[in-house]
Amino acid sequence: MNDLTQTPEMLIATMGARARRAAVTIAQASDAQKADALRRAAQAVRDQAPAIIAANARDMDNAAANGLSAAMLDRLKLVEDRIAGAAAGVEQVAALPSPLGSVIDRQVRPNGLELSRVRVPLGVIGIIYESRPNVTADAAALCLRAGNAVILRGGSEAKESNRAIHAAMLEGIVAAGLPAEVVQLVPTTDRAAVGALLKAAEFVDLIVPRGGKSLVARVQEEARVPVLAHLDGINHSYVDGAADPAMAEKLVVNAKMRRTGICGSTETVLIDRAYREAPALVRALIGAGCEVRGDDAVQGMDARVKPAQEADWDTEYLDAIVSIRMVDGVEDAIAHIVAHASHHTDAIITDDGARAERFLNAVDSAIVMWNASTQFADGGEFGLGAEIGISTGRLHARGPVALEGLTTYKWIVRGTGQVRP
Amino acid sequence: MNDLTQTPEMLIATMGARARRAAVTIAQASDAQKADALRRAAQAVRDQAPAIIAANARDMDNAAANGLSAAMLDRLKLVEDRIAGAAAGVEQVAALPSPLGSVIDRQVRPNGLELSRVRVPLGVIGIIYESRPNVTADAAALCLRAGNAVILRGGSEAKESNRAIHAAMLEGIVAAGLPAEVVQLVPTTDRAAVGALLKAAEFVDLIVPRGGKSLVARVQEEARVPVLAHLDGINHSYVDGAADPAMAEKLVVNAKMRRTGICGSTETVLIDRAYREAPALVRALIGAGCEVRGDDAVQGMDARVKPAQEADWDTEYLDAIVSIRMVDGVEDAIAHIVAHASHHTDAIITDDGARAERFLNAVDSAIVMWNASTQFADGGEFGLGAEIGISTGRLHARGPVALEGLTTYKWIVRGTGQVRP
Repeated sequence: MNDLTQTPEMLIATMGARARRAAVTIAQASDAQKADALRRAAQAVRDQAPAIIAANARDMDNAAANGLSAAMLDRLKLVEDRIAGAAAGVEQVAALPSPLGSVIDRQVRPNGLELSRVRVPLGVIGIIYESRPNVTADAAALCLRAGNAVILRGGSEAKESNRAIHAAMLEGIVAAGLPAEVVQLVPTTDRAAVGALLKAAEFVDLIVPRGGKSLVARVQEEARVPVLAHLDGINHSYVDGAADPAMAEKLVVNAKMRRTGICGSTETVLIDRAYREAPALVRALIGAGCEVRGDDAVQGMDARVKPAQEADWDTEYLDAIVSIRMVDGVEDAIAHIVAHASHHTDAIITDDGARAERFLNAVDSAIVMWNASTQFADGGEFGLGAEIGISTGRLHARGPVALEGLTTYKWIVRGTGQVRP
Repeated sequence: MNDLTQTPEMLIATMGARARRAAVTIAQASDAQKADALRRAAQAVRDQAPAIIAANARDMDNAAANGLSAAMLDRLKLVEDRIAGAAAGVEQVAALPSPLGSVIDRQVRPNGLELSRVRVPLGVIGIIYESRPNVTADAAALCLRAGNAVILRGGSEAKESNRAIHAAMLEGIVAAGLPAEVVQLVPTTDRAAVGALLKAAEFVDLIVPRGGKSLVARVQEEARVPVLAHLDGINHSYVDGAADPAMAEKLVVNAKMRRTGICGSTETVLIDRAYREAPALVRALIGAGCEVRGDDAVQGMDARVKPAQEADWDTEYLDAIVSIRMVDGVEDAIAHIVAHASHHTDAIITDDGARAERFLNAVDSAIVMWNASTQFADGGEFGLGAEIGISTGRLHARGPVALEGLTTYKWIVRGTGQVRP
């Protein structure tokens, strides 16, 4: 199908032109047909689990021979359960309400023109990911559900697994009468193909990187296509002087320690000097297995606290480590966050409503929280049903992004022969 | 204030850092304060009309000496009326309802978390424009009204006029208690400063070019910052077989000839072979002073029709010239538009509702119209009160863009101590 002797730019241009044509078709497909395609794709993934596991075994063998880390091997590995989970995820996306065709607003002008803004598909989405082969299924499902064509480019370590999952998805999609070009997988693991995809503004409307920080950084650096992503999640939980100590301890320990490796975990705790239970909070974190790095005052609270360096305030640990700084009330906390935040998720813990509103208003992050754990920063927890990613960018979509963020709108003007004077 | 011996990159970094700080301040300013600043700015522009006209006279002298075209000299020239118009425009923006703080949606999750998406300012906007000094006032007003800081970079031919208008605007803004850095004018006309601004993704959230096609093309080519713009307006009016002839003639002549130089003017007319009054329509356009370039069938309708070349279907004339092609019904018209449109504004003229809906659904342009003149493609006509530009891009904002397009949103989560299980 694709001639692998061609240049990466030629390959991407060929795939991009196919995707543009397929996007026109899927934009016109009915909602029922798109949902049907995803249900059939899910079933095909289930049916082909043995072939997918066999393909994955070849990837695992190669990965082990190439000395991949245990963590990467774990992300790569597919077992029956994970494949069933991927299929169930595709079915969940099929069951989501479609944003397409919904009317954002409508007005009738004094001259009788009726104007409405209606949601339509975005067009062609590029997904660049690594290691976890399940992304092949779930990212494709979200893009397709929102009426888009998608070009997938997975990691070389997962190439056999990705091909097997892609083949199964395609079987369902084609059986539902949609063109196979709706979901294309870049057939080469040549890294230059990623570069070509990132520059293909003519063919791709949005790039979503799914993977570690180095992948996201490379994509943001090289892309000439708009990118939806977050680079860092240096999230803050601010414990105000008017916080309830039991709630503060429960929230901070959950925000930091529930899962330390996710982007919504708290990395820095700011404590109001007026908060009297700071030592107990520090001990609770240490007791939960967390390394605490603190300023001088925090170091004085417990001998196990290590000194925080200036770099700690700008570090996303993604680990059982937290930095803690004492601040002089909500304004000082806001000033620290303005200086150090990555604009992902920041929370205030307080019983003082006025201070809470001041914080929610002044902190300019994609997600701001009052008396809640930052670990809730997730599309599923936000009721979106799924998530293509979390955006810390300011344009188009911000915070957890699912189907709506994969659409745009058009203006529909209905007249009765009006001419402009 | 700015040392002109520094490099363009240093200058833009200095201005960008100031703009970022000013953006934090203006994001927190009350709606009343922002409106007050604009009303004071408008009054200052009126009061300083003599100084502005004197500055403009210096620009006009230079421009004449540099041999600028009559059209450019006309765009550059400021007289009492145009200055009064600029001031009135700023007052109109002050009177617009602010989108800030409006709640896009709100939900309460089963765990009791209350989530809402609330409109907030975008941040820092860069405006790159040429010739028309009034943009200094109207673009600044729109950005400020939506709570943003703005960096203006006007054309070298208008530098004295822009400085005088900027100084007047600042007087009002500072008198209202806002920092002067909310509206900065790049003090050098060195073209390298434009390049630096286009790459300043750290300091600028959105660039809006205002000017001719060559300016927009350069901005789109060089920018590493998101750009809101349209490059072309190759707009189509499709006359269906079921169109009312009187309405069709009135709409097409208006769509093409009302003002030929605006981006919403029709450039290509597609006529259904089943439409019986095509020759009369062709004669009406010629009678209105329009040059008609047609396919073979259209050439056969009137001896004055010139042959259309292949390039005509991809040409934005912005002049009293139209290309006309006969097509086989609405599907053929859609196929032509898919192949040639610039995704700006396309219209169908028909009394057949089903065909109209098919066209409105299938044509993927920022604006699609039924029985209306494409010349209505304008923020003022769309009830937005003003317009920072029209976007043919697909992300963030599409079609006419005013205050809402200069905002983003954040997620506000209000809890009562919820932790994530």
